[in-house]
Amino acid sequence: MPDEANRVRIFDTTLRDGEQSPGISLNKTEKLEIAHQLARLGVDIIEAGFPITSPGDFEAVQAIARDVEGPVVCGLARTSKEDIDAAWNAVKDAERPRIHTFIATSDIHIERKLQTTRDDVIGQARAAVAHAKRYTDDVEFSPEDGSRSDVEFMAEVIQIALDEGATTINVPDTVGYTMPHEYAAMFEELYRLVPALRDVVLSVHCHNDLGLAVANSFAGLTAGCRQVECAVNGIGERAGNASLEEIVMLLHTRKSSVGLWTGANTREIARTSRLVSRLTGYTVQPNKAIVGRNAFAHEAGIHQDGVLKERTTYEIMDATTIGLDANSIVLGKHSGRHALRKALEELGFEVEGATLNQAFKRFKDIADKKKKVTALDLEAIVSDEMRQSPAAFELEWFEVEASSSRGPLARVRVSMPGGGVGEGSFTGDGPVDAFFSAINAAVRQEARLKEYHVSAVTGGRDALGEVTVLLELAGRMASGVGVSTDILEASGKAYLRAISNALAESAAAEAEHHLSRAEPEQTPTP
Amino acid sequence: MPDEANRVRIFDTTLRDGEQSPGISLNKTEKLEIAHQLARLGVDIIEAGFPITSPGDFEAVQAIARDVEGPVVCGLARTSKEDIDAAWNAVKDAERPRIHTFIATSDIHIERKLQTTRDDVIGQARAAVAHAKRYTDDVEFSPEDGSRSDVEFMAEVIQIALDEGATTINVPDTVGYTMPHEYAAMFEELYRLVPALRDVVLSVHCHNDLGLAVANSFAGLTAGCRQVECAVNGIGERAGNASLEEIVMLLHTRKSSVGLWTGANTREIARTSRLVSRLTGYTVQPNKAIVGRNAFAHEAGIHQDGVLKERTTYEIMDATTIGLDANSIVLGKHSGRHALRKALEELGFEVEGATLNQAFKRFKDIADKKKKVTALDLEAIVSDEMRQSPAAFELEWFEVEASSSRGPLARVRVSMPGGGVGEGSFTGDGPVDAFFSAINAAVRQEARLKEYHVSAVTGGRDALGEVTVLLELAGRMASGVGVSTDILEASGKAYLRAISNALAESAAAEAEHHLSRAEPEQTPTP
Repeated sequence: MPDEANRVRIFDTTLRDGEQSPGISLNKTEKLEIAHQLARLGVDIIEAGFPITSPGDFEAVQAIARDVEGPVVCGLARTSKEDIDAAWNAVKDAERPRIHTFIATSDIHIERKLQTTRDDVIGQARAAVAHAKRYTDDVEFSPEDGSRSDVEFMAEVIQIALDEGATTINVPDTVGYTMPHEYAAMFEELYRLVPALRDVVLSVHCHNDLGLAVANSFAGLTAGCRQVECAVNGIGERAGNASLEEIVMLLHTRKSSVGLWTGANTREIARTSRLVSRLTGYTVQPNKAIVGRNAFAHEAGIHQDGVLKERTTYEIMDATTIGLDANSIVLGKHSGRHALRKALEELGFEVEGATLNQAFKRFKDIADKKKKVTALDLEAIVSDEMRQSPAAFELEWFEVEASSSRGPLARVRVSMPGGGVGEGSFTGDGPVDAFFSAINAAVRQEARLKEYHVSAVTGGRDALGEVTVLLELAGRMASGVGVSTDILEASGKAYLRAISNALAESAAAEAEHHLSRAEPEQTPTP
Repeated sequence: MPDEANRVRIFDTTLRDGEQSPGISLNKTEKLEIAHQLARLGVDIIEAGFPITSPGDFEAVQAIARDVEGPVVCGLARTSKEDIDAAWNAVKDAERPRIHTFIATSDIHIERKLQTTRDDVIGQARAAVAHAKRYTDDVEFSPEDGSRSDVEFMAEVIQIALDEGATTINVPDTVGYTMPHEYAAMFEELYRLVPALRDVVLSVHCHNDLGLAVANSFAGLTAGCRQVECAVNGIGERAGNASLEEIVMLLHTRKSSVGLWTGANTREIARTSRLVSRLTGYTVQPNKAIVGRNAFAHEAGIHQDGVLKERTTYEIMDATTIGLDANSIVLGKHSGRHALRKALEELGFEVEGATLNQAFKRFKDIADKKKKVTALDLEAIVSDEMRQSPAAFELEWFEVEASSSRGPLARVRVSMPGGGVGEGSFTGDGPVDAFFSAINAAVRQEARLKEYHVSAVTGGRDALGEVTVLLELAGRMASGVGVSTDILEASGKAYLRAISNALAESAAAEAEHHLSRAEPEQTPTP
């Protein structure tokens, strides 16, 4: 029988803290897909968003609460009644809903950011937990900037949250400043000052500004915490959150020494990492622990030799443990709809009706160009289809000529969201520049390219190219991703999607402004 | 007066452990450029390579020893006389040369990899240190796989190394398995078992397989170690080494609590990171601590609000500390040779004669296309020039047509290293595929593309594109990088350089084979 006292709950904040990373703009379909994958990975809690901040965020959290089975679904809220009402309305249809409310307890945040007093913070914390508790038993409270707070004052606030019924207390290292021994000592002191903490779940939430997020989280777990807030690929504000896959594999690999365990299905780690990287446009560096391309690769001769003689001479983990062997599915140009559907199901995608038809059409197009269509290719195609939106510009036709002896020329035709087409042509410094300028002319927008990345989905000359674009349009940053065997086609799709995303966000912000919703400059986080 | 007892020596192994990462193949010029930058960064020791492994590595270490002033220059060697002789011959012209010799002390490595006995390991360690000591006073010894070794046996080996005169003892966590409290406890036990360790420098060398490399290194420093082996951007075998910039900024930011310090000039960190990323082709993920694009960026509204009100509400470091403000140099199309030379000097490049002429020509070409040429652009151009090699293929001319209505067509002309030109044309799945296939035809090689990445050097539509290609040619992996405002031109240059690198390595391996040098399957590392 598993040892419940040593079970560490995985609280995934990829869709909340992770999604706050600059340039990430996931739509509802994409968030839902990530949430389903997190459920397959077996996380305990999904922090699905921060519902008050925008109608789009609200709807995505609501969709996840209604659709995703297994994990607790959590919404973030400041201490105001409106925040908590919005969080509750978004999560209430979940099997197991949670409200997570927070307020800063460090003097620097109280004085400089909140511009209030410690007494006011106590009052707000009390009211927030009490209000949330009217809706649900499962209430989490975080003293923001906990690691820089006066521990006695923070203990007082935590005691009040517990008195009002909070069931999880999360003490974040909001600015990524603490060190393992400090963070552990803080928790020991909190247990001493607030004995009732022994009866609830204490939680860590660490940022990686100094490269210590995983080590600090681990120090907190060793000190008695049993929930860890983390994000896939370690994304999140600034240098990001503690990396989910590193925490899970640390506890898994060192279980016999540490004695802590999680309910995560490690074999879903690689796929989850790829999905999040693809949908956010945030690349994973080759030397990233666990999920980087090299994490299980060796270069030096003796290492290879050692690995051949005995895997454990240089490898402490097996690539199959994180699901890196799961890419054996291969389809070809003669594979039918049934085979595709079965392969997609094995990959965890439930695709029906029009979406299956569309995916099959894309699959056939690609199978005509590539001899073998692999699981990685299918993942890329399906993710690409999820990005399609009826209210977006679509690339209808393009032509690009580039040469070392004259300037490149691009011509494009784009179908407009409201119907009709736009055309544009341009000569630029390079073919991509010319292409993007021609698109600007066709859609009559002055988008400015900020970042541009291309990766191949798999190896080989017929690989699918995946292009990520970050652009600025009317003061708003937005990203888009496109997939094709043709890098220019993928670039054009990515660029048009980024423009569509920017315009959709502008329209949403406009609508919100008219409705006088919560002021957007007041969206804080632990 | 600085507190010498608490000074932590930065031992950079970017050019040794880092360079062992799959797909990295730096030429001598590139290694020298990185070594010069490491000297500007103020590292204490540069591990420049592993001289016995190839003539190319030997020559690069020798060039660094002769040319780079400031840091100790170190060469790695196994315990054999030949290894140590090669290491000494490579480093002996340095101001302060060091030989670093190592042998595994864990039973799994002794039995499975070395297939020998503990007694033999003791004998080899003794002989190696004694032999190295005949050449130089500065001898470092590492018991490989130290963290998994029986500590009493390892202590015995260390005692012998000290008896023979080793001045630095480095205890690596070769497989990235240890945890901070374990690693610290191991050092405490070693100090107890070998009191003479108090008289030399004890050193940490940590791998990041479980995400703990920085935390483990830090734990070792807290336990008394005063040298940290690390690599820029955390590159190295598998998930890489402890990240130099994270260690330096951790000690810098938490100095008042920790009391340890380094001689590193933190303002060179950003530039060093860019240089290493560019020359190795290893991207840095946006959420990488310290040097990721987002490390100093905020998305959430309140964070921005907080940052405006008071920087320290969310930022514990200042971007200027790592040199992120240093990109104020801007040149335009009317800037002359003198302005370029001055700007390059400010960037740390000493460019003279033909190289300056070539750089000026490139600069003028780019200034014609871009209104402003920034420091980042100049770095990219100069790095690109360093990659030029007289024995390489060169892209003379190309033409690519791509369209959504018909297959892409590419035609190229390439000048051959031995004189003469080759031409090729191809229709492929996409313009890049067609281009690369046309190059294969022109140079009559069957290179196979494995990975392909594109990044923009700066923002904006006239940005320079930097393309990294990893390919396989005759069983050998090689990478190449190309820079241009035209992404196709950059791709073609990168591809041709990768082919040139693969052929050069094949030729070197061939030569080595005929000379019967050290068997390449025997190149181990701590």
